[in-house]
Amino acid sequence: MTEAKLISSSIKENHTDYSKTSVPNRLLLGPGPSNAHPEVLNALSMNPIGHLDEAYLELMSDVQNLLRYAWQCNNRLTLPMSGTGSAAMEASIANFIEEGEKILIAKKGYFGDRLVDMASRYKANVIVIEKEWGDAFTLDEIQFEIEKNKPSVFAIVHAETSTGVLQPLQGIGDICRKNDCLFLVDAVTSLGALELFVEDWKIDLAYSCSQKGLSCPPGLSPLTINDRAEEKLRNRKTKVPNWYLDLSLLNKYWGSDRVYHHTAPVNMNYAIREGLRLIANEGLENIWNRHLENSNNLCSGLTELGLELHVSSAYRLPTLTTVKIPGSVDGDAFRNHLLKNFQIEIGNGLGSLSGKIWRIGLMGYNSKKENVDRLLNIFDTELKKFTFFQSATF
Amino acid sequence: MTEAKLISSSIKENHTDYSKTSVPNRLLLGPGPSNAHPEVLNALSMNPIGHLDEAYLELMSDVQNLLRYAWQCNNRLTLPMSGTGSAAMEASIANFIEEGEKILIAKKGYFGDRLVDMASRYKANVIVIEKEWGDAFTLDEIQFEIEKNKPSVFAIVHAETSTGVLQPLQGIGDICRKNDCLFLVDAVTSLGALELFVEDWKIDLAYSCSQKGLSCPPGLSPLTINDRAEEKLRNRKTKVPNWYLDLSLLNKYWGSDRVYHHTAPVNMNYAIREGLRLIANEGLENIWNRHLENSNNLCSGLTELGLELHVSSAYRLPTLTTVKIPGSVDGDAFRNHLLKNFQIEIGNGLGSLSGKIWRIGLMGYNSKKENVDRLLNIFDTELKKFTFFQSATF
Repeated sequence: MTEAKLISSSIKENHTDYSKTSVPNRLLLGPGPSNAHPEVLNALSMNPIGHLDEAYLELMSDVQNLLRYAWQCNNRLTLPMSGTGSAAMEASIANFIEEGEKILIAKKGYFGDRLVDMASRYKANVIVIEKEWGDAFTLDEIQFEIEKNKPSVFAIVHAETSTGVLQPLQGIGDICRKNDCLFLVDAVTSLGALELFVEDWKIDLAYSCSQKGLSCPPGLSPLTINDRAEEKLRNRKTKVPNWYLDLSLLNKYWGSDRVYHHTAPVNMNYAIREGLRLIANEGLENIWNRHLENSNNLCSGLTELGLELHVSSAYRLPTLTTVKIPGSVDGDAFRNHLLKNFQIEIGNGLGSLSGKIWRIGLMGYNSKKENVDRLLNIFDTELKKFTFFQSATF
Repeated sequence: MTEAKLISSSIKENHTDYSKTSVPNRLLLGPGPSNAHPEVLNALSMNPIGHLDEAYLELMSDVQNLLRYAWQCNNRLTLPMSGTGSAAMEASIANFIEEGEKILIAKKGYFGDRLVDMASRYKANVIVIEKEWGDAFTLDEIQFEIEKNKPSVFAIVHAETSTGVLQPLQGIGDICRKNDCLFLVDAVTSLGALELFVEDWKIDLAYSCSQKGLSCPPGLSPLTINDRAEEKLRNRKTKVPNWYLDLSLLNKYWGSDRVYHHTAPVNMNYAIREGLRLIANEGLENIWNRHLENSNNLCSGLTELGLELHVSSAYRLPTLTTVKIPGSVDGDAFRNHLLKNFQIEIGNGLGSLSGKIWRIGLMGYNSKKENVDRLLNIFDTELKKFTFFQSATF
């Protein structure tokens, strides 16, 4: 041993002041994470095995096949990135945009902003088109802008968690192909929950997360790219300026070569395999219908309680409902009340919608009738306690 | 619902061909991942909670304080990055090197190569000094090169998992400060297992992983930076060219502002809190002695069996022992035999050492006498079955 001595630190000498790790048991009806399926948590807690163990390589193949089903595509390069949703978002920029290339981003909420920030860090020529937070783009608007700007990549968010808007995607793929442009879709709040056909809709690259439709904890971010995107990757003039997210390196590990890249988060991959297996067992059509039905019931229930929804029925997102906070209610106080007294989390608005809307998520394992009934019930009995005018009568 | 139909995919219609997720129970005595502590796996499988939930913010503070103890420092900016070890490695480059800046990398194994690859992606002016895979640098050599090259950052791996070499670090910090250079240390295979004093040794930035000394599954990578490094970060001329790993953004979430950056891998943070709590409970000095003792016993045992160690006793790494594969033995066949018949994983050599050495890890929870005894016993009875000359006598 060397001469250095243990220095003082913020931990006391006897180290007994930290109790065993525990957290409260919440019902997560916010914008995500959502609760994980109990079988997923069981899988998560199995013993780690080596990332080059044959049993693990087999599990990786299962994950890839099950992901292809969830994405509804046969893309060879389909894998979970080893980070939360934003990691795959960044991978979709870092690998497919080189310095000076044009990306057209259709922005209608917080996560469009994030794409803009990322793309500019990779020195893209970023062109942004914008809509109000709560609205969606029409196909004509998108066609006009793609033809006018001729970008290399067109990026749009399918399900905007910041606004509760579902952006229709059909038809965009054709426009992109006619204009020699890659079609990039953020499916963070739609994969495994909402109708999504990567192949039929001609989506060239798409990414998502583990903690919403897939009923897993946050930690992985599925990404899928088709042949057109693979070709763009192969034809890069420069190395991908991001090592951890470099798909050409990851492809050697997830592809047939199985060359070690980074140490895989093996337990999170156990979890996602189980989440995806449960999805395959239930069947996508059943899942999509379940999400739609529960969301419809939530929306009618909220409306019956006199609340107003933020998004018009044409663009309403079944995984995340945005509801206006009545002018007479302190939105934060009510959210805290639900969390403290009922262990239920709902979300505040992001950015300019902060304090103006609540965000209620019904995703994956959490999209069930009993959660809708419970929440509506609590809104019915509790919300009046937070209304300024009525509170005077207590 | 739209008109698109469910396309055929590699999953059969009834989706019953994927069984519940399960993996074999292995004893992981390779270069990592190592087995997780059972209490860590319990913590890992708790229900997720929101990444802005007060209970989670409190858990984050615990993780940071416990990490400061493990690192032996009081650095404000001490946090786990949301990816496996290489993510924090990349963060240490992406945040602290701007285009054209000089980094001096002392390379003596595989992970030095990775640093070189990353630094060149961030367009650093990379200068490399090299040693044989199995050797370490002397303080004089390092001093000479730093004074000659005047780099902005000097980077070295503390514990080289590819070779089994422990690089002495004391004294380097002083040289770096005299030459206005940041001292960057890869502590992937030393944090929580081997003597390491970030503050006393004047290490400006260091990173590690969760799956070795911390007895957690892979998925997080602790990073700590001191005031000197923070100052360099503040004085950057350009935005960090990596969004996910941008410490100035992460600092707003992990610092007192608690501004949402990316969705945290909450369950992995449960796990690391528990792993770190167990470390604080046992006490670092006890842990360091335990690792040293078990490694010494392994080394003597292997030598008694007639095997030769790859690294001279002066630089031997207690967490990872590299042992030469006897010329008469098929190294891969023996490794597979251990895995298939004893559920024990040991590692092959990396790069030029592939097929020449085995790598045996005793890290964190796995550094215990019973594992050493079991492995030596198996080597004693099984290795002779794989020796070509002797096998003729069976």
